[in-house]
Amino acid sequence: MKKIAFLTILLFCEFVLHAQQVTSLKLLPMPKQLILNTGSYRITGKFTVSVQANVADTVFYKAINRTYQALNRKTGLVFGQHYITAADRSDSASLVIAVKTMASPVIAADESYSLTVDEKKVKLEAPNTIGALRGLQTLLQLWDKDDKGYYFPCITIEDSPRFKWRGLMIDAARHFISFEEMKKNLDAMAAVKMNVLHWHLSDDEGFRVESKVFPKLQVNGSNGDYYTQAQLKELVGYAKDRGIIVVPEFDMPGHSQSWFAGYPELASQPGPYRPGSRGQWQKEHPRPNTPKTTSIADVIANLEAPTFDPTNEKVYAFLDKFIGEMAAIFPAGYMHIGADENNGLTWRQNPAIVAYMKQHNMQSTDDLQRYYVQRIYHLLKKHHRLLIGWEEIYNDKLPADAIVHKWIPSDNGMIKSAGKASDLATHNPVLISEGFYLDVFMPAYVYYNNPAFAETDNPNILGGEGAQWTEFADNNNIDGRIWPRAGAIAERLWSPALVNNVDDLYRRLFILSGQLDEQGLSNISNYERALRRLTNGESIEHLQILTDVLTPVKGYRKMVAVMFKPTQTAFQTSPLTNVSDIVFVDSETKRKFRHLVEIYLSTKDKNAEAQIKSTLILWQQNDVQLQLVFADNKRLLEVQDHSKNLAAAAAIGLDALGKIDKGNANDTDWVKQQSDTLDIFGKAHNETEIAVIPEIIALVTGHLAPEPASYSVF
Amino acid sequence: MKKIAFLTILLFCEFVLHAQQVTSLKLLPMPKQLILNTGSYRITGKFTVSVQANVADTVFYKAINRTYQALNRKTGLVFGQHYITAADRSDSASLVIAVKTMASPVIAADESYSLTVDEKKVKLEAPNTIGALRGLQTLLQLWDKDDKGYYFPCITIEDSPRFKWRGLMIDAARHFISFEEMKKNLDAMAAVKMNVLHWHLSDDEGFRVESKVFPKLQVNGSNGDYYTQAQLKELVGYAKDRGIIVVPEFDMPGHSQSWFAGYPELASQPGPYRPGSRGQWQKEHPRPNTPKTTSIADVIANLEAPTFDPTNEKVYAFLDKFIGEMAAIFPAGYMHIGADENNGLTWRQNPAIVAYMKQHNMQSTDDLQRYYVQRIYHLLKKHHRLLIGWEEIYNDKLPADAIVHKWIPSDNGMIKSAGKASDLATHNPVLISEGFYLDVFMPAYVYYNNPAFAETDNPNILGGEGAQWTEFADNNNIDGRIWPRAGAIAERLWSPALVNNVDDLYRRLFILSGQLDEQGLSNISNYERALRRLTNGESIEHLQILTDVLTPVKGYRKMVAVMFKPTQTAFQTSPLTNVSDIVFVDSETKRKFRHLVEIYLSTKDKNAEAQIKSTLILWQQNDVQLQLVFADNKRLLEVQDHSKNLAAAAAIGLDALGKIDKGNANDTDWVKQQSDTLDIFGKAHNETEIAVIPEIIALVTGHLAPEPASYSVF
Repeated sequence: MKKIAFLTILLFCEFVLHAQQVTSLKLLPMPKQLILNTGSYRITGKFTVSVQANVADTVFYKAINRTYQALNRKTGLVFGQHYITAADRSDSASLVIAVKTMASPVIAADESYSLTVDEKKVKLEAPNTIGALRGLQTLLQLWDKDDKGYYFPCITIEDSPRFKWRGLMIDAARHFISFEEMKKNLDAMAAVKMNVLHWHLSDDEGFRVESKVFPKLQVNGSNGDYYTQAQLKELVGYAKDRGIIVVPEFDMPGHSQSWFAGYPELASQPGPYRPGSRGQWQKEHPRPNTPKTTSIADVIANLEAPTFDPTNEKVYAFLDKFIGEMAAIFPAGYMHIGADENNGLTWRQNPAIVAYMKQHNMQSTDDLQRYYVQRIYHLLKKHHRLLIGWEEIYNDKLPADAIVHKWIPSDNGMIKSAGKASDLATHNPVLISEGFYLDVFMPAYVYYNNPAFAETDNPNILGGEGAQWTEFADNNNIDGRIWPRAGAIAERLWSPALVNNVDDLYRRLFILSGQLDEQGLSNISNYERALRRLTNGESIEHLQILTDVLTPVKGYRKMVAVMFKPTQTAFQTSPLTNVSDIVFVDSETKRKFRHLVEIYLSTKDKNAEAQIKSTLILWQQNDVQLQLVFADNKRLLEVQDHSKNLAAAAAIGLDALGKIDKGNANDTDWVKQQSDTLDIFGKAHNETEIAVIPEIIALVTGHLAPEPASYSVF
Repeated sequence: MKKIAFLTILLFCEFVLHAQQVTSLKLLPMPKQLILNTGSYRITGKFTVSVQANVADTVFYKAINRTYQALNRKTGLVFGQHYITAADRSDSASLVIAVKTMASPVIAADESYSLTVDEKKVKLEAPNTIGALRGLQTLLQLWDKDDKGYYFPCITIEDSPRFKWRGLMIDAARHFISFEEMKKNLDAMAAVKMNVLHWHLSDDEGFRVESKVFPKLQVNGSNGDYYTQAQLKELVGYAKDRGIIVVPEFDMPGHSQSWFAGYPELASQPGPYRPGSRGQWQKEHPRPNTPKTTSIADVIANLEAPTFDPTNEKVYAFLDKFIGEMAAIFPAGYMHIGADENNGLTWRQNPAIVAYMKQHNMQSTDDLQRYYVQRIYHLLKKHHRLLIGWEEIYNDKLPADAIVHKWIPSDNGMIKSAGKASDLATHNPVLISEGFYLDVFMPAYVYYNNPAFAETDNPNILGGEGAQWTEFADNNNIDGRIWPRAGAIAERLWSPALVNNVDDLYRRLFILSGQLDEQGLSNISNYERALRRLTNGESIEHLQILTDVLTPVKGYRKMVAVMFKPTQTAFQTSPLTNVSDIVFVDSETKRKFRHLVEIYLSTKDKNAEAQIKSTLILWQQNDVQLQLVFADNKRLLEVQDHSKNLAAAAAIGLDALGKIDKGNANDTDWVKQQSDTLDIFGKAHNETEIAVIPEIIALVTGHLAPEPASYSVF
């Protein structure tokens, strides 16, 4: 029955070694196993779908119809099926989908599927409907066009994920992220087979859910931006339709100022409170005898932030009711309680709390925090929810089913992790966001190479989560902040560890970026929109030539810079429309340029040389044009120096091209001088940096240095 | 107190005559009266707002904060106020907003406001909060930048609308328009001070609201795409926050097949039914003895479409419950019942209905329709709703408070209007959508010049509505289909009749387009997204040079073309991703080119000539590049001829430029020959046409012909 192909390549856990054979594929994440055959299934207007399944799962049928309509839009072919249902059972359909059982998108679900395309038919099989959802995303990514029209390549795929928990955390508290944005991000998550939305719903800056039991939570605890219960339920359903569970986080006992705006009696100090950042609180409530400092380490060590009072029984009565209310909205069996970054200072300021600790023989505020977490653990159990907390919850008496969420970067000298990583892995299930913080502006390959996932899998590691905190992200830029970089994390968590070729990751990541924007995410559109905002409707052509090679400064440097600016106190409403807020972390232009430089330096390829040259000329000449734009646009002055420096760097690059055949690396004085100058151009300036300096340095030195495996966050 | 300006220009109902003095203003719609002074109020990071009002109107405060944050984003200045409330009452604030009373966004509300900007202060005053909302939009449009930063120009504005009812109708039935898209369109409506969303929620192709009383309406009557009641309520609230009322339309007795999919007993024929277009029904239920035809007039005359049975008492009992359910969701005092395009053929096929007519002495099916409308009128009265219907409801016994909605184009030879326009205006309140149908692809100036609004206002005319039917619009293209053209309608309905300069309209309309996209609408973004979809992620540069000067064929020609294509039966899911679906109706490139040609022909301006020449060269050379793109992209073949023709037309234009100083208009043979060739290039081809041919013809003839005031829809 099956057409025997002339060329069959078996790629099992090592297809990246055969990159030349699979560079036509646009799959992300890469499947566990694939055999790429010759030939293709041609897609015509007669493309039909049938279902072989005895499952009454509306999630499943909705996903099939979404995929069918997405192909319909991509091809413009006007497919004939209006709405595919269980009644469509024909064996002769173009695509036959066979599943055995219905599955809920729980972490325990088998997400495997197999997909075969030959010239006559496409077949998708899965043990359950969730596996089928994952396979439909693969099918959509397989679609391609050529001079004859549209097709799926002949292929056999067997796929299942490496980790059960593939999450994305979005902080909707610091800047509110709208309901519509959340939906778009769920679409993107589904495209890369992520299955957990971890939704950070409360923090000092805002309480973002409607409580009907305690309405002052959202009324006093937000600036009016919060999700209604109807929206929360709709979003949970929208996620479910895409095979994704929603895990809410209500951060406590710290990061909780917004709760106290309406209910100050829950706090360990009398108040009054209003939603606002810790920095703002600190500024308005200076501790006596705290030295003025410009060191972030000192700031954190001396931070006295609003905190729940763990000695107050009314707190637990309140939370019991609140957790019950939320459990009815969020059906997934998990609730995240945060529990991070509480240094205990606030508790030590309250004599009653100190007395309570003494009375109960607690040695430190760590013991009091442990007590608090235990109490919440039992409240959650009562409501049939498992507790998840950031790694500060960890201690050797933590109940074995509580999930510990690692986040503290190993180069962080200021916040102590409660336990060692090896302990965590032994005693409790672990989620890893260490090395997956998207808000520290690392290039995608850094997340991709997260060392926590390089080794043999520890069975206690459930998986991980990309994390987008929103000090510097809001509705206008969050799509481009999270995507496409979260795709690198999605692949790390889904695909075998040996899928680790960075060049091929970038090839597919930029394709993914285009696909996501096409499907309705605004990761690219918002960038162009933001450039138009900056020019106030005038042409963005010359500005974009510059901003295409700018990236935000890496790590927390932007946050530190902002923290000490007197104007930047209210993160919740600070506008994120400056150049540093909108430029991509991974510059596609940089990756392409780097690739050309790599080819040129190793082969002296003439075509690569010509492309490098024309790019350098473009950069060199752009500054003159851009100075005209700067003249009446104060907002762009922050990148005026970058524009000059890029032009000067390009001029050096052109010099180097002229010298390179004569062996410029031998002219050591010149190399040293130019490299030093370029190093200066490569420095961050006003919260952005030029991304292509290392490649221009390579032209000068004749040697392209490998990229650092990671960068410090400070 | 008020700084006396050196230059004061009083512009009252005739400022367009002083266009040279107000071309710096970006207001749309133009206010009733303005005095533009010299100087400006400079916006800094210390910009604050205070409120002088004793109103507990959350709508009002939300609008103030939205405006404040929009300015914050535009300037990036990090304003200091976190959330403006009634407690912010300082006299010394930058912007002081004073209102007397709270108003609901009802049609009777006074929407006037006055706005004064001097170098020290901005003051917005309004008799009620709705007027203040309108004024805030004006303020936002006044914002501008220069070499010193950001400012509002010093100005005094007194403003109020010409018509009370300024609506936009969106058809969410034929293609479902998502909840998110509806919100974005409400934002855009608010920006141009429209105040009624008329939401066409059911039609043959789909029933788009959730009924809890009759759930088979949406379950059987849609492809799963419908609004939940929670969404409907949220959208009504979202509209209310922007001073907009929502008027739902449930079209009956015709256009109702989707109702009968779940409740066939309501129909005048036994069924079965499923949601689908009238064309599809016609194809599947051919009338015996109907001649095969390719004439749309014959098709309409012979259309036997599913229709409610007006002789069945169960219909009225059903609708009584349904209307009650909907009235609880849509608080505005109006409900639209459609009642259009019922030719009575279906009724005449049912002997029981014919007998009923005889028994009740009804002469024609018009009488039966009149009876039906009367019954629904009284049901609506019971639920405290006024009836609105398309003009076919009109007759001399129609109750005086029923609102008649004119729509039938005067050049339509096929559908008879029930009454004459003069009668309508005498007996009943009238809404006008005649000449405001956005889905017939007319350039904005045609709507702007709608003859119905050229005369002295008839007091019976409540106002009008732009109308976007969705045979050829869906979530992916509707923003660019409606906007910015609906802005021309908004201005026609708000501003004095004498504001009618087309060039100035276009200047402001393209600015509006950029503003709307910046604020989150995807009118521009979706175009770029769609081009990237067409190239499958490859560069869109050369394609866009062509598509920027293509427009969809005007009128119903696209619909007629599609109607007779065998594949195009299911409007509900047909993909709208072809070039004709995504190109703008008003080409900005064309308007700019036209302006240059106008200058050049009248003044022989060298700069204009140079710009014309470089544009023509761009068009001429683009085809060669684009042929490479066409080579492996079958989807683009539909515009391959246009690309060749644009290049050839540009070559003729360049020839003409060369000859023009020698008096090419005297070379009558050449002029005739080239004009004939260009006429052919200007013809529609595959549902698009080249927009710049008249301007190239002008270069040949030496004379720029005025644009037609209107175009036939057939």
